[in-house]
Amino acid sequence: MTEERVEFRVSPDRYKHWRMSCDGPVATLVMDVDEQGGLVPGYELKLNSYDLGVDIELYDAVQRLRFEHPEVRAVVITSGKPKIFCAGANIRMLAASPHGWKVNFCKFTNETRNGIEDATASSGQTYLAAVNGTASGGGYELALACEHIMLVDDRSSAVSLPELPLLGVLPGTGGLTRVSDKRHVRRDLADYFSTRPEGIGGKKAVQWRLVDEAVPRPRWDETVAERAAELAGRSGRLAGNKPGNKPGNKQGAAGVPLTPLGKVRDDDAIRYDHVAARLDREAGRVDISVKGPQSGAPADIVEATSQGAGFWPLAMTRELDDLILDLRTNEPELGTWVFRTEGDPAAVLAHDELLLAGQDDWFANEVLHYLKRTLRRLDVTSRSLIAVIEPGSCFAGSLLELALAADRSFQLAGVFEDDPDAEPAAITLGDLNMGPLTMSNGLTRMATRFWGDEAGYEAAAKRKGEALEADEAADLGLITFAPDDIDWDEEIRIATEERASFSPDALTGLEANYRFAGPETMETKIFGRLSAWQNWIFNRPNAAGPDGALRRFGTGQRAAFDRKRV
Amino acid sequence: MTEERVEFRVSPDRYKHWRMSCDGPVATLVMDVDEQGGLVPGYELKLNSYDLGVDIELYDAVQRLRFEHPEVRAVVITSGKPKIFCAGANIRMLAASPHGWKVNFCKFTNETRNGIEDATASSGQTYLAAVNGTASGGGYELALACEHIMLVDDRSSAVSLPELPLLGVLPGTGGLTRVSDKRHVRRDLADYFSTRPEGIGGKKAVQWRLVDEAVPRPRWDETVAERAAELAGRSGRLAGNKPGNKPGNKQGAAGVPLTPLGKVRDDDAIRYDHVAARLDREAGRVDISVKGPQSGAPADIVEATSQGAGFWPLAMTRELDDLILDLRTNEPELGTWVFRTEGDPAAVLAHDELLLAGQDDWFANEVLHYLKRTLRRLDVTSRSLIAVIEPGSCFAGSLLELALAADRSFQLAGVFEDDPDAEPAAITLGDLNMGPLTMSNGLTRMATRFWGDEAGYEAAAKRKGEALEADEAADLGLITFAPDDIDWDEEIRIATEERASFSPDALTGLEANYRFAGPETMETKIFGRLSAWQNWIFNRPNAAGPDGALRRFGTGQRAAFDRKRV
Repeated sequence: MTEERVEFRVSPDRYKHWRMSCDGPVATLVMDVDEQGGLVPGYELKLNSYDLGVDIELYDAVQRLRFEHPEVRAVVITSGKPKIFCAGANIRMLAASPHGWKVNFCKFTNETRNGIEDATASSGQTYLAAVNGTASGGGYELALACEHIMLVDDRSSAVSLPELPLLGVLPGTGGLTRVSDKRHVRRDLADYFSTRPEGIGGKKAVQWRLVDEAVPRPRWDETVAERAAELAGRSGRLAGNKPGNKPGNKQGAAGVPLTPLGKVRDDDAIRYDHVAARLDREAGRVDISVKGPQSGAPADIVEATSQGAGFWPLAMTRELDDLILDLRTNEPELGTWVFRTEGDPAAVLAHDELLLAGQDDWFANEVLHYLKRTLRRLDVTSRSLIAVIEPGSCFAGSLLELALAADRSFQLAGVFEDDPDAEPAAITLGDLNMGPLTMSNGLTRMATRFWGDEAGYEAAAKRKGEALEADEAADLGLITFAPDDIDWDEEIRIATEERASFSPDALTGLEANYRFAGPETMETKIFGRLSAWQNWIFNRPNAAGPDGALRRFGTGQRAAFDRKRV
Repeated sequence: MTEERVEFRVSPDRYKHWRMSCDGPVATLVMDVDEQGGLVPGYELKLNSYDLGVDIELYDAVQRLRFEHPEVRAVVITSGKPKIFCAGANIRMLAASPHGWKVNFCKFTNETRNGIEDATASSGQTYLAAVNGTASGGGYELALACEHIMLVDDRSSAVSLPELPLLGVLPGTGGLTRVSDKRHVRRDLADYFSTRPEGIGGKKAVQWRLVDEAVPRPRWDETVAERAAELAGRSGRLAGNKPGNKPGNKQGAAGVPLTPLGKVRDDDAIRYDHVAARLDREAGRVDISVKGPQSGAPADIVEATSQGAGFWPLAMTRELDDLILDLRTNEPELGTWVFRTEGDPAAVLAHDELLLAGQDDWFANEVLHYLKRTLRRLDVTSRSLIAVIEPGSCFAGSLLELALAADRSFQLAGVFEDDPDAEPAAITLGDLNMGPLTMSNGLTRMATRFWGDEAGYEAAAKRKGEALEADEAADLGLITFAPDDIDWDEEIRIATEERASFSPDALTGLEANYRFAGPETMETKIFGRLSAWQNWIFNRPNAAGPDGALRRFGTGQRAAFDRKRV
């Protein structure tokens, strides 16, 4: 299924499956999946079921609402089909997909749903699921990602998680985690609910906390509109907080259009304006280079906003985001990503400071949270991440996060022999490393790195703003290794070659554990506990074998199970 | 490998692999594995490597130290072999084992290591790993479960986690979790360490926090003795807290011998004094019945102690513990366990109160924590758990935990038609439901049940001590369903038959998620995140396939990997 490269760049005028409309503070996303519009041949997207292509559009819409529509304070997700809200991920697509595709697909859909929750929590764009027909499996999971769930009360519509009884897999797009940890459905009721393919509707769905309200069809449209207006009214979206700009005022700031990314891709390279990747298929490696700002920071956030999608932090983040998605989906055999940066650390820090100073501006807020989400995507990427810090690099503040996200980092001690006059390689901590760019576990990468070592954290944090050369950075625990010119090439070569020789699966498991020291959140539970169990089940003959439930679904034959409990 | 039934009952006089000795407040457990003493044929336990049989003895020793040796305040784990501490789980055993055996083996070894930490935390028996040779893989993981790790500094001994580079699997016996969350090893150093088969020794192992101290061989014996004495001196073990009994005083209370369990097992039943199980192979179900105390509670904890292993809460817990282990290991196809109780609720509550009132007595403390650990074993058991509450049952206090641990519970509304004069089925909350019997997530089963619903918790907790009949119990959210006599048999039949028709793997994943709402701890991370990833890897051809790393280890052939990252 991965013969053709998947592209994540899309825009509303090319949507096949969604309709986006805005009416003052309320936006509506209508899911109306084109049955024949599957991303790859071999299945029909019946009953508003989705594949990766449908979710790529959803992701695009969620992003655009945040950047292009500062006036929007509530987003209604609903269905354009009669009687069906969404039937979840397409089963034939799942059944026919290789294991890696399933796992990558689930990861992306999870990230998109986490993004919906982030829009609600961080941007004051509150999502409302207007479930105007049956929502099953991934359909209900999409609703679960919304802040408020309304279900039409018509004696036939219901919410359900039929994955276990029908397919022998889990509701793995956050379903189990959100039912227990977000909706607080009692565990025994949750258990019963998840074994009932027909689901639960009406008042009982409300009593069990599966939905927030059940609304009769005659009052549906008006109640959805009412509720959306209420949610919009409660929103603290920053666009409305300008002087004289009352909540609900349509005359907010103008949005920032997410103009098409400049991207050139061929077989061994992907290039954008600020980010470039060389694909080394022989070595199973990608060398990624991120350029710092070409000029100083804008004078203030107003000027930054007028730069629009060209504002460096936004432009760089969009490119990085697209690159991560492209490589994850299209290049599974390139197991190690090596990050370098190039540019002026001071210019990076100046942009960071501008964002932090402007945090009560809607645009600065959006850019910061987008960077946060993109770095989180890196954290859950099943590739080994290595940062290489050389003279001329700009691992400072926001870009230092790339090194802090890496499994290992190498910083050159001093300079290269053939360029003795260069400034030595240095890293610089900034305010962005100490606050807003939290990982899924709720901690910054710095706090996670020094988890259980407060003194180590303090000692490093105190050096904020200083250019730290390799030996100092190593002593402070900010980088892993500090070889000098003599050992440099050899050490990095050995590290990457060795990495390529290990079991790719074991690396995935190792990284998924070590990257998340400390506390857990709903998000880490989804990517850790839930996804890991789901991946295990996806690999088991009881689901994915020729007689397994996933493969036999719809054939009229019952699955043949190995009854041993593991 | 599961042709012969595995027995978990053992005693020190029959140990093949461990030597236990006590010298006042310090006990020593010497691991000296009998190469030819494997549990099943087909492998030699070289280099102090272990299989399930070795770990069953370790579990027994840890238990006996708590109950039989109230005077012991520190436990030294060391090796009886020259130059090798422990090489971890035996690879040939693992490679030859079916998937289910591997997973069950890892679960038990994890529980035993959690038990070591619980002895340190809850009983003041502090474990000291005296690593007097190389500790690799599970060997180092055993040390990680100890409070203090000493490594001999002799230029050859090291600690290592070679699972990833050599075997293509994870250090799954808590290794990854304890390295990051307990030892607070920095993530990049942890990553590097876990890819280095030769490990790390000496001062660097201390600097990186992998061990607490590195001690030269000439000073080894004396330093171990010193450290053990220090740990013993710091212990607050309750045996020493009696009037006139100073810490370290050898004249503590006498221990309670864990006399042999009376157990009769045949093909379709397992019977003990207080616990009985009927094995229904046709239905894939086990019916488990737990009897309450046959008489009132002892007058005080002194009298309880004199009842020794016959004291009902201890006797019942030991039987339940053995039954869980037996069924998990020997009966994987019996996927549903149905719990019933029988007896006088007042007698159960009286025993509970005695334990709670005596909490500052060492024996009461041990019994409570043992019950806690046994119920935690149930929580991580990959079987569907159903509680059936009928007239004549005693689901009160400690035994009510069985119903609260269940995935679903059924309570008869009223009485059976053929016994109209019976007391209606009732459940009773007691103090033991509100405090000491925490799950692995650190919350009680009540708190987990009402996670996010404080009002629900309070409403139920207020009814403590009242016999709650079915309708009330259902209204309070303490049980799942309350059918009456007319529907009773049918509802339970359908529930158990339906359960048996589902994918066993999907049920395992569902239960592992829903049972643990709310916060995570190191223990839940081990059973959730770490074990789930490990189980996934165990199922992948890169590890377990004919050309996988686990199967090719020791053959001289390198593993052939599918290089796609998932």
